[in-house]
Amino acid sequence: MTYCVGILVREGLVMIADTRTNAGLDNIATFRKLHLFQTEGERVITIATAGNLAVSQSVLNLMTEGVRDPETGELETIFTIPTMFKVAQFVGRAIREVYRVHGKSMEQQSASFDVTMLLGGQVKGGRLRLFMVYSAGNFIEATADTPYLQIGEHKYGKPILDRAVTSETGLQEALKLGLVSMDSTIRSNLGVGMPVDVATIRRDALAVEVSHRIDRNDEYFMDLRERWSAALRAAHQAIPPPPYGRD
Amino acid sequence: MTYCVGILVREGLVMIADTRTNAGLDNIATFRKLHLFQTEGERVITIATAGNLAVSQSVLNLMTEGVRDPETGELETIFTIPTMFKVAQFVGRAIREVYRVHGKSMEQQSASFDVTMLLGGQVKGGRLRLFMVYSAGNFIEATADTPYLQIGEHKYGKPILDRAVTSETGLQEALKLGLVSMDSTIRSNLGVGMPVDVATIRRDALAVEVSHRIDRNDEYFMDLRERWSAALRAAHQAIPPPPYGRD
Repeated sequence: MTYCVGILVREGLVMIADTRTNAGLDNIATFRKLHLFQTEGERVITIATAGNLAVSQSVLNLMTEGVRDPETGELETIFTIPTMFKVAQFVGRAIREVYRVHGKSMEQQSASFDVTMLLGGQVKGGRLRLFMVYSAGNFIEATADTPYLQIGEHKYGKPILDRAVTSETGLQEALKLGLVSMDSTIRSNLGVGMPVDVATIRRDALAVEVSHRIDRNDEYFMDLRERWSAALRAAHQAIPPPPYGRD
Repeated sequence: MTYCVGILVREGLVMIADTRTNAGLDNIATFRKLHLFQTEGERVITIATAGNLAVSQSVLNLMTEGVRDPETGELETIFTIPTMFKVAQFVGRAIREVYRVHGKSMEQQSASFDVTMLLGGQVKGGRLRLFMVYSAGNFIEATADTPYLQIGEHKYGKPILDRAVTSETGLQEALKLGLVSMDSTIRSNLGVGMPVDVATIRRDALAVEVSHRIDRNDEYFMDLRERWSAALRAAHQAIPPPPYGRD
């Protein structure tokens, strides 16, 4: 499994991804799922991936090596596409190209062609945007009403986001909330594990602001986990006992 | 969907169930999923159900009207079985009997034979126990290591239980934590909805202690929701901002 979350607030974008991959419980490894493509001052793009690792690695390779534009015939890469909307279409085309090459054979072997990606970033002259791209290559975009998107094992970490994240949440606060959401997921699902990669991009900065790997020795994250646990304990202890009897 | 949770602590047993059923988003209704079978001073048994409503209603009817014991040929009901372990086997037999009558036809119509039940209670002379019975009629039991069992849409409400519930948690505290878990689930999944039925059984009391339906006007539950939200807000606000930069 995997858990990745992207949060798009007025101040900027937060992307968080775990690094655990597994093919069965007895085959666990660490792979980076959060990827950064940056030409400082011109574009900053991050992609988080969930699903079949062979598929997502192929898609990432295609995006940097290039995919031919079906109309112009030109070789495009993630560093040349002029707008974020076109980048989302490009990611979709790369996924469909991998499906064309491997999809049928995978299905013959009962391996599901399963990949979803969070794509966030900004190209000079355009807006900072956040998309979720599906296995079919189609995609949706986060909006002010629903400022976060999740892929992978999303349910355990959703309640805190539902309660606390709005598009007016500050960038640092959004990063904190994303880490709380990741912590809840790691505690409840063995398929999601440390280290955790985080990135933040401030709106119109056209450069990554935070790009950091949180490992088991990370003091801030360990402190956040402890504070959150202690606060939850205090919170339910402070609620008065239920007054119910037999109706 | 459905969300039901049973928590077995040293002091007793908590059972909580929502009441929403749906066959598609445009066909939503309220059905009781928490059922009580009591002969005060002799036995107190509660059952919470998830899955296909036609199946779970048939199973409940069989349990009160009676199923023939395959060995003795006698008609047994949930009020006559002598131990909780035998009650769990009996619930399994009732599920298999419903499968025998309806299972094949349901599968022909692409309806899945899908039912899970939480069974908790005590029969005089035996222990207070909590089981989860599967569609195949087999079952597992909660233990001191894992004192709670969930059926239905269980992921949203699991983190708080993972963090806070142990077998030493008090009965009233366990009820509170179960309600927090239900609140998180209701907020994140439209298929789980009010009213919520709760029951508690104190160990060796052989009678239900709390049996209550929480509706939208329930002051305690509304207060719990507000306090919990406010405490979560305060909790993440109190965590210092992340110190991360570019590695």
